[in-house]
Amino acid sequence: MKPLDKIREAIRRKGADALLVTQPENRRYLSGYTAIDLSIAESSGVLLVPACGTPLLLTDSRYQLQAEKEAAGFEVVLLRGSFLGALKRLLGRLGLRQLTFESHYMLYGAAMGLMDVGKKQGIEVKPVSCMIEKLRIRKTPEEIQKIRQSVLLNETVFQEVFARLKPGQTEREVALAIESTMMQRGAEAPAFPTIVAAGPNAALPHAVPTDRIINKGETIIIDMGLKLEGYCSDMTRTVVLGKPDKSTVKIIRLVRRAQRAALKIIKAGISARDADSAAREVISEAGYGKNFGHGLGHGVGLAVHEAPSLNRMRRNKLQPGMVVTVEPGIYLPGLGGVRLENMVVVEEKGCTILNRDKTFLDL
Amino acid sequence: MKPLDKIREAIRRKGADALLVTQPENRRYLSGYTAIDLSIAESSGVLLVPACGTPLLLTDSRYQLQAEKEAAGFEVVLLRGSFLGALKRLLGRLGLRQLTFESHYMLYGAAMGLMDVGKKQGIEVKPVSCMIEKLRIRKTPEEIQKIRQSVLLNETVFQEVFARLKPGQTEREVALAIESTMMQRGAEAPAFPTIVAAGPNAALPHAVPTDRIINKGETIIIDMGLKLEGYCSDMTRTVVLGKPDKSTVKIIRLVRRAQRAALKIIKAGISARDADSAAREVISEAGYGKNFGHGLGHGVGLAVHEAPSLNRMRRNKLQPGMVVTVEPGIYLPGLGGVRLENMVVVEEKGCTILNRDKTFLDL
Repeated sequence: MKPLDKIREAIRRKGADALLVTQPENRRYLSGYTAIDLSIAESSGVLLVPACGTPLLLTDSRYQLQAEKEAAGFEVVLLRGSFLGALKRLLGRLGLRQLTFESHYMLYGAAMGLMDVGKKQGIEVKPVSCMIEKLRIRKTPEEIQKIRQSVLLNETVFQEVFARLKPGQTEREVALAIESTMMQRGAEAPAFPTIVAAGPNAALPHAVPTDRIINKGETIIIDMGLKLEGYCSDMTRTVVLGKPDKSTVKIIRLVRRAQRAALKIIKAGISARDADSAAREVISEAGYGKNFGHGLGHGVGLAVHEAPSLNRMRRNKLQPGMVVTVEPGIYLPGLGGVRLENMVVVEEKGCTILNRDKTFLDL
Repeated sequence: MKPLDKIREAIRRKGADALLVTQPENRRYLSGYTAIDLSIAESSGVLLVPACGTPLLLTDSRYQLQAEKEAAGFEVVLLRGSFLGALKRLLGRLGLRQLTFESHYMLYGAAMGLMDVGKKQGIEVKPVSCMIEKLRIRKTPEEIQKIRQSVLLNETVFQEVFARLKPGQTEREVALAIESTMMQRGAEAPAFPTIVAAGPNAALPHAVPTDRIINKGETIIIDMGLKLEGYCSDMTRTVVLGKPDKSTVKIIRLVRRAQRAALKIIKAGISARDADSAAREVISEAGYGKNFGHGLGHGVGLAVHEAPSLNRMRRNKLQPGMVVTVEPGIYLPGLGGVRLENMVVVEEKGCTILNRDKTFLDL
């Protein structure tokens, strides 16, 4: 069954007449429409998916041609003036009695406006949470294939830039080289701002690349990902120019051991928490528990961070077809850090690593 | 008075004890903290600004060092676990009785969670809209200087890429060259996805660059902007490789005439609508009214699209210190398009154009 048909069924099960889809990846997932939103307040389009009948894509004249070209099976409705005004007219025309909206991707102010419109027209407006995300969490073989292509292109870009990496380059220069190589090799966009953090800066898990010069012997965390046909990749390597010193090798090996421990147990049926614990125990036993301040990983698909989260708080079970990162790290304030990140597909009997790159993993 | 003090005063005037600042540009405006949010659901920090007492920046371990370095005068509070859980503890500690939040930048689901926390603690939680945006709308001389630097760097990048522009390059290649040149020349980031649209693609005001090859004689719309020290620039030029034909020259001249008509009347005290009309009338009188489907312009500052909007619906008066774009366009479906965009500072007696670039404006 196509995602659109599954969602129609879910709408009916909720007892609703239609779902308003505002979340950009959900919009692309259901309609194929690829336009980017400048921000949540500047949407390039909203889907109105009725339980029965033709689904609609509401957008404005700027996006009309693209919408008509991409959103096969959708009727493109052109907004002139305000979104709520247009919706008011549409809701009347469609004869809806109950409308649901995505509570996790609609601004409070906008939701209030929508409820107000509903009240005036006798339509019950109700929030729903993550209806489409629940579908997206398990990937189809076609989606996994697209994710694999994204991972492999990301590795090609990494290898190309890593081959040219030299002491004296700045973090910022390397990050720029990565992002422009991504685009030259055909990526739609970086999946997130590339992290290149060397020496003490590597102690910040989400460091912004600075003008600091990279020196020989320092650990350099490179965390990078791209979008290809909508699907994201996300990989981290920690590399050293020249020969890493003993203490660095020790930490890299430890993080790698933690990663392997998680990879070994990840399969359908275990909990997200257990996956996290497998890696965390290795790091904690070595005395670095406090230096691993984030979760083990997260789902990846049309969004670079999506369900499931792998961390200590999550008891939900992994399911076949989930694609997740496995990214333990150790951060030593003032000194540096190490993070290693691969992506895997959860399967019944284990998991398949999507990465091929082994840079600095075989120390 | 500093923005932070003005906001404290505004909070008191609303009869509230504190404001929760979630909107990223507002956060930067008040605190100087520059971290980027991956999305509205993945915030790198939230400000809790009490009417009296030390303002707080709530963030997690990933951003701790950056927050402490950048947010001078703010106490950095580290979140462990959920945001709402941490807020619950904090609100108790601070003894607040009324808390306001930004209704235009908080998700409906999150706002419901916040109100729930408030209810349990006897704190009244109330939405407010655009409190900080109202301050941001008039720029200080220091801000205008930063915007000017952003505009000039953007023009340098344009000139550099335009000098190398040749038939046979694709739209995508040119857009990539622009964005990587921006970064090489020291921009923080592109302010929005660069538009390069040639020939018939130029008929889409928000075209995404394609792999279509650019030919001699076609109109090419280049719409680009960057961020420098947080402040955005936004400029559009329509250029032609080789000699433009007569009909193209006619349309470019017409759009330029429309732009000049607006520039001539823009000053403090006129309405946004009147500015729009001045340009629109020129285009409508020439018979292209239907082909100018968007508003005349928008404010630019920390955000590339901010108040005020200049369009037919807005009756609000322009004020000194506003920085706005003036960007009329004509779009001919199937054929092509022309848009010309400069940025100006609104002043008591007129406006100052921030751009120096004259490419194809003097036809």
